[in-house]
Amino acid sequence: MRILLAGLLAASALPVLAQTAPAPPPLSAAEQAADRAIATIRDRALDDEVAWSITEDLTTEVGQRLAGTEAEARARAWAIRRLTSLGFANVRIDPFTMPVWERGFERADLVGPYPQRLVVAALGNSASTPPGGVTGEVIAFASVDALRAAPAEQVRGKIVYIGHDMPRTQDGSGYGIYGAPRRQGPTIAAQKGAAAILVRSIGTDREHRNPHTGVMSFAEGVKPIPAGALSNPDADQLERVVKRSGERRPTLRLILESTLKTNQQSGNVIAEVPGRDPNAAPVLVSCHLDSWDLGTGAFDDAAGCGIVTAAAKRIMDAGTPARPIRIVWFGAEEVGLFGGLDYRAKYGKLPHHAIMESDFGADRVWRVDSRLGEARIGEARQLQRALLPLGVVPGSLTETDGSDIGPMVADGLPGAALQQDGTRYFDIHHTPDDTLAVIDKAQLRQNVAAWTGALAVLAGPITPRSATRPRR
Amino acid sequence: MRILLAGLLAASALPVLAQTAPAPPPLSAAEQAADRAIATIRDRALDDEVAWSITEDLTTEVGQRLAGTEAEARARAWAIRRLTSLGFANVRIDPFTMPVWERGFERADLVGPYPQRLVVAALGNSASTPPGGVTGEVIAFASVDALRAAPAEQVRGKIVYIGHDMPRTQDGSGYGIYGAPRRQGPTIAAQKGAAAILVRSIGTDREHRNPHTGVMSFAEGVKPIPAGALSNPDADQLERVVKRSGERRPTLRLILESTLKTNQQSGNVIAEVPGRDPNAAPVLVSCHLDSWDLGTGAFDDAAGCGIVTAAAKRIMDAGTPARPIRIVWFGAEEVGLFGGLDYRAKYGKLPHHAIMESDFGADRVWRVDSRLGEARIGEARQLQRALLPLGVVPGSLTETDGSDIGPMVADGLPGAALQQDGTRYFDIHHTPDDTLAVIDKAQLRQNVAAWTGALAVLAGPITPRSATRPRR
Repeated sequence: MRILLAGLLAASALPVLAQTAPAPPPLSAAEQAADRAIATIRDRALDDEVAWSITEDLTTEVGQRLAGTEAEARARAWAIRRLTSLGFANVRIDPFTMPVWERGFERADLVGPYPQRLVVAALGNSASTPPGGVTGEVIAFASVDALRAAPAEQVRGKIVYIGHDMPRTQDGSGYGIYGAPRRQGPTIAAQKGAAAILVRSIGTDREHRNPHTGVMSFAEGVKPIPAGALSNPDADQLERVVKRSGERRPTLRLILESTLKTNQQSGNVIAEVPGRDPNAAPVLVSCHLDSWDLGTGAFDDAAGCGIVTAAAKRIMDAGTPARPIRIVWFGAEEVGLFGGLDYRAKYGKLPHHAIMESDFGADRVWRVDSRLGEARIGEARQLQRALLPLGVVPGSLTETDGSDIGPMVADGLPGAALQQDGTRYFDIHHTPDDTLAVIDKAQLRQNVAAWTGALAVLAGPITPRSATRPRR
Repeated sequence: MRILLAGLLAASALPVLAQTAPAPPPLSAAEQAADRAIATIRDRALDDEVAWSITEDLTTEVGQRLAGTEAEARARAWAIRRLTSLGFANVRIDPFTMPVWERGFERADLVGPYPQRLVVAALGNSASTPPGGVTGEVIAFASVDALRAAPAEQVRGKIVYIGHDMPRTQDGSGYGIYGAPRRQGPTIAAQKGAAAILVRSIGTDREHRNPHTGVMSFAEGVKPIPAGALSNPDADQLERVVKRSGERRPTLRLILESTLKTNQQSGNVIAEVPGRDPNAAPVLVSCHLDSWDLGTGAFDDAAGCGIVTAAAKRIMDAGTPARPIRIVWFGAEEVGLFGGLDYRAKYGKLPHHAIMESDFGADRVWRVDSRLGEARIGEARQLQRALLPLGVVPGSLTETDGSDIGPMVADGLPGAALQQDGTRYFDIHHTPDDTLAVIDKAQLRQNVAAWTGALAVLAGPITPRSATRPRR
C-alpha cells in the first residue's frame, strides 16, 4: 500500500517539478550571438593537446617537486621556459622564502604480539625520531574526539593511533571533516605526552597499501612529536591487532626521520595574456606548481596548471580579450599556501575581475559556482549558460572557493569555481600513485573546454586576431 | 550488405546451435539422488566463515611469510594450531631445507637527464649491488627477443630495461607469455655483460605505483647481476625518459641489497579427513602457506588455504567420506615450488584419487577442468553437474593444472582444477597490495561452495554423521 502511494506520488511529482523549474530569461539577439561565439571557442578546446603536454612533460622532466627544494626550483625554471614558448607575456617569478621539511628514512614495525612491518609515511612537519626510532605501546582511538576525551596519563609515553572512516564523495567534502586526525591529532597527542602518533591515511582507497602524506602543524608552544600516516590496509591491520591484543597492548617501533630547514627559496610563476584595456582588472586563473614528494604530482596539480594554461592560450590564440588574463602557477601550496599568501600580500588589495583555481585533479567539471556580486548577475548567468552544454550544472551564485586563492576568496574578491568530480580524488591524493597514469585524457579535455568557455565569458569579449591585425 | 548477411546468419545460427548442443545423458534415479545430496552440502557452504577466518587470522597474526624465514616458521606453527583446532586428523609438518634469498635496502634514482626517484623492488635471487649501488646508462628493449638480438658490446656495462604490455585476462594466461622479461631477461642481460637489469613489473595494474616482485633464476654458469622490477607507472616514466633522451642515454643509480643463505628450514603442513576405507587413495587438496614479502599474502595464497580447508571441514562435519582427504599447505611455493617437489619426492609415486590446488586468488570459480581418465568419465561429468549451479562452466575433461602440484600433474596423476576468475589477479600479484583488503567475501564463499561440491563428488559419497554414530 505504501509502495502504491509512493508510486502515485512519484508519477504526479514529475510534472509539478517541470512546471516549477524557473523559466530561463529571454536572451537578446546580442546575448545569443555572444553565446554562439563562446560555444565555438569552447568546443574547439575539446581536442586540446596543451593541457596533456604540460602535465606529461612537467611530471616526466621534473617529477616530484616538493616546495622550497631544488626540485621545485627546477620546476620553476621549466615553467618559465614552457610559458614563454607558449607565447605568454610578462613571464616571471615572484620569489619568496619559506621553511622546508624533508622526509628521510621511515619504517614502522609491529614488535609484538604479531611481528610484522606496516607501511607508513611521515606527515609534513613531523618531528624526526631519535636514532633507533621510538618504541612504545599502541593506544588506539576511533576519532580525534575520543583522543581528546582520554586522560593524559593513559596516553603518556604511548604511540597514539587515530582512525576514521572517510567515504568517497563527488565533491570531496569528506576531506574537511575526516581530515581531523591529521590536522588536530598530532597537537592533542603531543599535549597529552604521547611518544608519537600514527593516523589512518586521510584517503578513500581501501585496497591500496599507499600511505597518504599531507601537511600538519603543531599548535603554538606544543613540542612536535613524530607523526605519520598508515596506508588504509595497514590501518585496518593495526586495528585488528589492537582488537585481538585486548589488555595487552601491541608494541610498535617507529622510525620517521626528517630534516627541517628555514629560509629556503620558493616562488610563484606568473604569465599574462594582455587585454584590450591594459588597466582593466585581470582575471586570475591559477593552479599550484609544487607537489608532494611521494608521487609526481600529475593529479595534484600539474593537470590544474595544464588546464588553466591551455584555456588561456586558446583565448590568446583567438584574439585579444577585453581584460587581461593573469596565469599564476603558485609555489608551495601543499605545505601551507605560502604562494597564495605571498600573492595576496603583494596584489590582494588590487582589483581583480575574478579569481579562479584548478586544484582538484583532472576529472570532469560537473558544476560551476560563482560569486561575482549582484551587479554582475548577467555575467554569472552567461557563465552558467557557457558551461551547461558540457554537462556542467549551474551551482551557487553567492559562493566560490579555491586553495591558494582561498584567503583572497575569504577577503571577498569576486571569483568562480569550476567544480571537478572528486569521487576518486582522495584515492590518489598525496600518495605515490599520483602520476600521469591516473590522468584521463577525455576528462582533461572537458576541463580545458570548460575553462575556455569560462574565460571567454569573464575576460571577453574577444576581438578576433584578424580584426586586431591592422593595429600592428 | 555484409552487415545484412551477418544479421541473417546470426538469426539462423541460433537455432542451429541449440539443436547441436549435446543433450545431457539421462541420469539414473541413484545419480539424481547423489546430485541432490551434493547440492545440499554445497549450497550450505555459501554461508561459510571458515575460509574468511583462516585468511584474516593468518594474514593478521603472521602477515608476510617468506619461504624459509622465521616468519614462515611462525606460519607453520600457526597452521598446526589452526588445523588441529578445526578437528583434522594427523596434523603434522613434513620438513625440508632450501636456500633463502632476502630483500634488503633498495632504491632507484634517475641521475640524468631528469633527476628523480623511481619505485623498484628486487626480484628473488637478484645479486646484491655493491656499496653505493650500480650506476650506469640505461638501454631499453621492448621485449626479451629484442635484447636477445642486441650485440653484447651494446649492452656491456649498461643497465638493461625490458618492457612488455601484459593485458588483463580472465584465465591469467598472459602470465606465461608476458613473464619472459622476468624469467629469461636477467640471464640474457648477464650473459651480454649488463651491469644490472630492470623489468617492467609483470603485472596488469597500470595506475598503481606498486612493483611486482617474483622469483627468477640465472641459468647454470651465469654470474648473477642485480635484477629488479619497476612499477608500471615508473616503467612508463622510464620509457618516456628514454624516448626524450634520444642518443644521450639516461643514467640511473640502482641499489638492490639482498642476502642469500643456504640450508634454511621450510616444510609442508599436512592434515587429513579420514575416509571409510583407510587404504583408499586420498584426494589431495592444497594451497601454499608461504607468501612473498611485500604484502601479507591474502590473495596469494592464504585464501587458497582457507578455501580448501573450509571445504574439507564441511565434508568432515557432514560425516565420513568414502576416501581420505589430504590437506596440504605447501611451504616455499613462491621461490621455486620446493614444497611441491618435496611432497612429490616423498609421495608422488603413491596412488592419489585426485590432486587439486587453489592458488589463483579468491575471486569466483568460473570453470572446472579435470583429467580423471577415460574410465572415470562418469565421475568427471558428476563433478561438472555439481558445480554448474554455482555458475561454473564445464571445461576440459583431459587437462588439469596447479602450481605446487604442477610437477605431479606433469607426471600424469589424476586431478581437477577449479579455475578462478583471474581478471584482477595480476593487478595485485606479488605487490604490497596483496592484503586482506582485496578479498571479496561473497566470491570467497562461492569458492568454498565449489570446492565442497567437488570434494563431495571426488571423496564421496559421504556416510552421514548420524549413520556412523552407531559404530562408535
